[in-house]
Amino acid sequence: MKSSTKLPLTGLESPLSEMEQLVQDTCHRFAEEVLRPASAALDKMTPEEAVGAGSPFWEIMQHAQGLGLSVQAMLEMEPLERTRIMLIASEELAWGDGGLAGMILVNQMPGMYSALAGNLEMVAFCEGKLGCWGITEPDHGSDMIDPEGNLRAKDAPYGRPNCVARIEGDKIIVNGQKSAWVSGAITAQVCALYCHLEENGRTVPGVVLIVPLDLPGVTKGKPLDKLGLRSLNQGEIYFDNVEVPIAHLLAGPDQYADLVYHSLAEANVHVANLAVGLARAAYEHALDYAHQRKQGGQAIIHHQNVSYRLFHMFRKVEAARALVRRAAEYNATARQPALQGSIAAKVTATQTAFEVASEALQIFGGNGLTKEYQMEKLLRDARTCLIADGCNEALALKGGVLLVDRDKV
Amino acid sequence: MKSSTKLPLTGLESPLSEMEQLVQDTCHRFAEEVLRPASAALDKMTPEEAVGAGSPFWEIMQHAQGLGLSVQAMLEMEPLERTRIMLIASEELAWGDGGLAGMILVNQMPGMYSALAGNLEMVAFCEGKLGCWGITEPDHGSDMIDPEGNLRAKDAPYGRPNCVARIEGDKIIVNGQKSAWVSGAITAQVCALYCHLEENGRTVPGVVLIVPLDLPGVTKGKPLDKLGLRSLNQGEIYFDNVEVPIAHLLAGPDQYADLVYHSLAEANVHVANLAVGLARAAYEHALDYAHQRKQGGQAIIHHQNVSYRLFHMFRKVEAARALVRRAAEYNATARQPALQGSIAAKVTATQTAFEVASEALQIFGGNGLTKEYQMEKLLRDARTCLIADGCNEALALKGGVLLVDRDKV
Amino acid sequence: MKSSTKLPLTGLESPLSEMEQLVQDTCHRFAEEVLRPASAALDKMTPEEAVGAGSPFWEIMQHAQGLGLSVQAMLEMEPLERTRIMLIASEELAWGDGGLAGMILVNQMPGMYSALAGNLEMVAFCEGKLGCWGITEPDHGSDMIDPEGNLRAKDAPYGRPNCVARIEGDKIIVNGQKSAWVSGAITAQVCALYCHLEENGRTVPGVVLIVPLDLPGVTKGKPLDKLGLRSLNQGEIYFDNVEVPIAHLLAGPDQYADLVYHSLAEANVHVANLAVGLARAAYEHALDYAHQRKQGGQAIIHHQNVSYRLFHMFRKVEAARALVRRAAEYNATARQPALQGSIAAKVTATQTAFEVASEALQIFGGNGLTKEYQMEKLLRDARTCLIADGCNEALALKGGVLLVDRDKV
Amino acid sequence: MKSSTKLPLTGLESPLSEMEQLVQDTCHRFAEEVLRPASAALDKMTPEEAVGAGSPFWEIMQHAQGLGLSVQAMLEMEPLERTRIMLIASEELAWGDGGLAGMILVNQMPGMYSALAGNLEMVAFCEGKLGCWGITEPDHGSDMIDPEGNLRAKDAPYGRPNCVARIEGDKIIVNGQKSAWVSGAITAQVCALYCHLEENGRTVPGVVLIVPLDLPGVTKGKPLDKLGLRSLNQGEIYFDNVEVPIAHLLAGPDQYADLVYHSLAEANVHVANLAVGLARAAYEHALDYAHQRKQGGQAIIHHQNVSYRLFHMFRKVEAARALVRRAAEYNATARQPALQGSIAAKVTATQTAFEVASEALQIFGGNGLTKEYQMEKLLRDARTCLIADGCNEALALKGGVLLVDRDKV
Repeated sequence: MKSSTKLPLTGLESPLSEMEQLVQDTCHRFAEEVLRPASAALDKMTPEEAVGAGSPFWEIMQHAQGLGLSVQAMLEMEPLERTRIMLIASEELAWGDGGLAGMILVNQMPGMYSALAGNLEMVAFCEGKLGCWGITEPDHGSDMIDPEGNLRAKDAPYGRPNCVARIEGDKIIVNGQKSAWVSGAITAQVCALYCHLEENGRTVPGVVLIVPLDLPGVTKGKPLDKLGLRSLNQGEIYFDNVEVPIAHLLAGPDQYADLVYHSLAEANVHVANLAVGLARAAYEHALDYAHQRKQGGQAIIHHQNVSYRLFHMFRKVEAARALVRRAAEYNATARQPALQGSIAAKVTATQTAFEVASEALQIFGGNGLTKEYQMEKLLRDARTCLIADGCNEALALKGGVLLVDRDKV
Repeated sequence: MKSSTKLPLTGLESPLSEMEQLVQDTCHRFAEEVLRPASAALDKMTPEEAVGAGSPFWEIMQHAQGLGLSVQAMLEMEPLERTRIMLIASEELAWGDGGLAGMILVNQMPGMYSALAGNLEMVAFCEGKLGCWGITEPDHGSDMIDPEGNLRAKDAPYGRPNCVARIEGDKIIVNGQKSAWVSGAITAQVCALYCHLEENGRTVPGVVLIVPLDLPGVTKGKPLDKLGLRSLNQGEIYFDNVEVPIAHLLAGPDQYADLVYHSLAEANVHVANLAVGLARAAYEHALDYAHQRKQGGQAIIHHQNVSYRLFHMFRKVEAARALVRRAAEYNATARQPALQGSIAAKVTATQTAFEVASEALQIFGGNGLTKEYQMEKLLRDARTCLIADGCNEALALKGGVLLVDRDKV
Repeated sequence: MKSSTKLPLTGLESPLSEMEQLVQDTCHRFAEEVLRPASAALDKMTPEEAVGAGSPFWEIMQHAQGLGLSVQAMLEMEPLERTRIMLIASEELAWGDGGLAGMILVNQMPGMYSALAGNLEMVAFCEGKLGCWGITEPDHGSDMIDPEGNLRAKDAPYGRPNCVARIEGDKIIVNGQKSAWVSGAITAQVCALYCHLEENGRTVPGVVLIVPLDLPGVTKGKPLDKLGLRSLNQGEIYFDNVEVPIAHLLAGPDQYADLVYHSLAEANVHVANLAVGLARAAYEHALDYAHQRKQGGQAIIHHQNVSYRLFHMFRKVEAARALVRRAAEYNATARQPALQGSIAAKVTATQTAFEVASEALQIFGGNGLTKEYQMEKLLRDARTCLIADGCNEALALKGGVLLVDRDKV
Repeated sequence: MKSSTKLPLTGLESPLSEMEQLVQDTCHRFAEEVLRPASAALDKMTPEEAVGAGSPFWEIMQHAQGLGLSVQAMLEMEPLERTRIMLIASEELAWGDGGLAGMILVNQMPGMYSALAGNLEMVAFCEGKLGCWGITEPDHGSDMIDPEGNLRAKDAPYGRPNCVARIEGDKIIVNGQKSAWVSGAITAQVCALYCHLEENGRTVPGVVLIVPLDLPGVTKGKPLDKLGLRSLNQGEIYFDNVEVPIAHLLAGPDQYADLVYHSLAEANVHVANLAVGLARAAYEHALDYAHQRKQGGQAIIHHQNVSYRLFHMFRKVEAARALVRRAAEYNATARQPALQGSIAAKVTATQTAFEVASEALQIFGGNGLTKEYQMEKLLRDARTCLIADGCNEALALKGGVLLVDRDKV
């Protein structure tokens, strides 16, 4: 009997459909041959260099378009199959490099959110353009995920929004700024902008619109210098009386909270999935290293304490992937997505990625700390995910509010 | 917009098939109307009372036969559907009472293992009889899950097995004992016995056979008095020259390690699933209580710290269930089950059940500690699962060995 | 060279003074010869039996008086030495039995709090009497540790207190009840009562007084049936126009919050210390068992995974004890005790006790779950401590408020 | 009443002696005025720049000599007072910068180990020279902390040592290399070298000697480029027939295991203490930031979830410091130090530093990830400590072996 079973690329994976298998293979090859080699180089560059003319970044973005995963292509599939394909593809990309996989994801966000809003015209407009999601603001980090104000102290004022739109005739006029945490902002051509609306002399949440970033009045900050996911640029976008055609409006105040809910339910699952790819990469590196590194006359995989720790990494990666898939498949098939499920997936998978990256680094001993190996970068990338797309603590508070059964209180 | 979404009974569950839904409903009703009321009473009885003549135990076991979940019924389904049905059914039962759900499971083990061995005659023989799995021995707690000896120190002797069979003509003669940890032993009518074989003057692992427990020479110890899962009886079985017809043999030495592997891969997933049911019960009790209990003028579900903790319970229950399902579905569809997946599910789900039960109890404050509420029983039941069906630590060591890629070392 | 060093009874203990050593030895002997044998018996009794006429409880309480640790004796020492002696004594007692050590502690509380209030007359009055601390109320579990209302939602009403005193001439008249969580209530002769005061038609926090429990109008509930610390009785006290002489008043509204602060700072450290004793008992049992239990031909202490886990238990016990001592010694020498330190000690030590008890039980495998060994009782006792004397979560919220620097906000 | 108490610099600290207070103040000022400003700059330099001519490193090392903490000065104190002074001083330095505090520590190691060996001549020789501890080897990472071979598989060969000494007349001849993990190697003038001895044609553990690094035949690798503690240089030292006078010998084979034991017992406590300084710095930054950062109209310290998390950081820092002090004070006063205590302190404090740094970073939200704030550097520094001076897992395995009671097995 075989006491051990070799698992597929993505572990405890039931047989994939032919198309799923094809996408997985294609993305895996792209991750291995293109993303991984570029990844280490981009990590070492300054933020300016990484988005500069000579950076491999640009070629990779172009390459990624060729993967056939555009929003329009995706919309042709049934929701469940679309969801599965996106997750399978994205895990491979993140296995290659978390930051670049994140870039490929945020580029699609304006199109994805247009699709959520049912605006196919804007989907078409965004197709093929680099994108970003402009929601978080300097004075309203976690407030933006909470349009109902459930997380604020009861008598606490919201304070001034940093970015405000108003509607004048067939124009939306935008003023203010989004914070430095907008992923992909520096390289984006279009932005899915979520901001407050000035109406009758007061500002309310809110509007969602697609802003072409080459409009007059748009400027950008400098790219952020940060711990991890360094190949994913982040920075401010400033708006000075930017005039956007009304046709670019995806939602007004009546639909705002709903679109935030759906957008977050979508985004959280995808960020969770990137974290699964990171966690798996860390686990695989450690497993490989344990087969190669010898101490005391034998490969350390035969040291009981080492294989015990590897097992727990395997276990955590599988649990995280299982939850991400389950939450995503629920959302794809239910009448309404469950944001608490998406948050659960995001919190679990990012926490897993950080733990597994740290445990994997530990298997490398001192080598894990040096820039010669990939482990210290994976740790930095994974750590970043605990904050990206919503601090896990703020998300969990939001998730807690969603558990209240309004029929019972 | 609805800021919250009511989830189905089993959380982030994609639409069930009609049959799955029927089974879930039936088992849920049985759990609510039969298991829960009996559960508290059985917990307070002495072990002897709980299996005595006046105990509700017997009626429940008979009732359970009526659920239509016998091994023979299950074998008529496709493997994937069979697996899903069993998990869905079993989670509801464990939600009702972990110990009784465990009883219903172990009763089927002789039939299930006969099926794994491809012996339909023994499946038929076991049908309708209360059963148990006789594997663990007093001096070989975790050794029995490790027939290859991977977990033993290199030069450590195995020591004398406590139970040995030998084959004489068309009889298998069994002598010795199985340890007090055999679940269901006290009430079992048949036992799937896994033990060493005496052959040419030495004992080797091993044989598997179905032993009718009314044979001459079989006696039993007294039922164990223990912390949790008290409605699941456990105790020793002693064999004094017990003669079993050779037709009851499921596996000899050549198939032994293989059948242990498959049996464990099957059993671990099911125990994991019971733990999911326990964890969910604890979470639901805490969620309910948080809606009812008022402090400082409002239900404690509105205390931020309480709903934050509830969210993390929800998150863990979903992650555990997702992993159990994923591992089980992999095993149902792969050419060979992945034991490391089953172990991952067992370790994760039982650890989750213990954590969630403890966190849920904490929501009840002092009430959680009293016998008037269900929480302290759930904590005891959940704690028991960290050892039942293999200590989590021994299982994780075993799981670690299964990660070794023999082509690479 | 000796690769191992045998440590003193309490681990990494710097040399004790002669008196400290004497107290440790005396209490250790008492714990071993008296408390441990009674402990298992008391655990198995019903709550009524445990405080009934035939129970060993009464003799033990009398015996404990002979240890020379009364409040009056303690007050003769310098604060630092007094604190050290009490902790050293109490750890040994809790090592013997957590519940009985808790009883010995709560018996002294009325005297201790009288001393904190500077009322030596009441110290003398309480000397030699069994006591209890009546603070928690049915509708105000955690409110009582928060007289300033820092933990309540800003606009949430306090609601009706369950127990109210009013002052009439030279009498204090008490009406209402304290909740079932009052430790030692059933057997107490005196109670340190902390409750609201009715004054000018409204109730305010509060008053502290010493109530002799044989006064007319005092009745008691029945002893609580609970998970752990079963030798420590708990139950309600009801007050029906109970008249207490004004000389029994320890604090009025002006001193109330201050005395609650000091009482909690004192009590939390002592409960923390009991938890250290429990944790150490669990660790020692597991260490012993690992030397005796053989698997695979060798004592399991030689299984690397077992000794690794034992090391982490050792490490946690030492960290908990170190923190308890540090917090207590700070409080004994500082101008004002730091309640955040006491809470830190309580949360850390009780969490440690629960973790270590669970890990220790796991070393015993199946034996850990049976009533034949002490481990399942230790787990239950340790779990109870996470709620006793303040839920750890509520305490941590309180501790968080104490970190605010009022000069900076 | 004051509901909050301002604590001293090092938290729950009982009153310091006059000298302790003076040392703490001096070191705190040095840390604040010298180390912190240099720290960020050194972190951003390449490893070569950081030890290059223009680096602030050199001036700081010279400055540090002026703190009066040399080994010779320390030896004039009683062991307990010496230990306390060193810990108090070192925590402040690490609070300023972990890497530079580490440098100041490793510089003293040759002198400290000479003192442990009772060789005052070598203490004097090392005084005022930058030093390092040459023990770890490329093929023997954790082997060097285990001269008895307790952690190796029973039949596993040790393999070739990478560095070997032999004694010829009044010379010790050294050949081979120490690994890149030798802290301070690049800048060291003297090395406390621990290596195997060639004797009668075989190599045995081992010898300890003080090697002046300006001797012919000594060369060094290039400084390591690594995740954290970047101001602490690390690199290989190569020995090519280096001739060291026999007077530099601190221990031969008979004393070797003993000196390793004492050295490790000493070093582990000091590394633990550095981690306490790091953890405290992270906690203080987060506490400060929580007073300044406003969200929803109030400083986030008033957000219940934030102050709750801060409390747990406070609690962990105090527990780690308490354990480090307790272990160190035990070692300073016992007949023989308890290495298990030093390891417990190292594992606990470094794990605490990593957790607290990560939790503190999380309080900063996105700002925590940028290079503009100190948090991401603190996280990297803290992570490094889990491996520096012995992987925590290898140390815990070693600690487990030390728990075996040889009288009982």
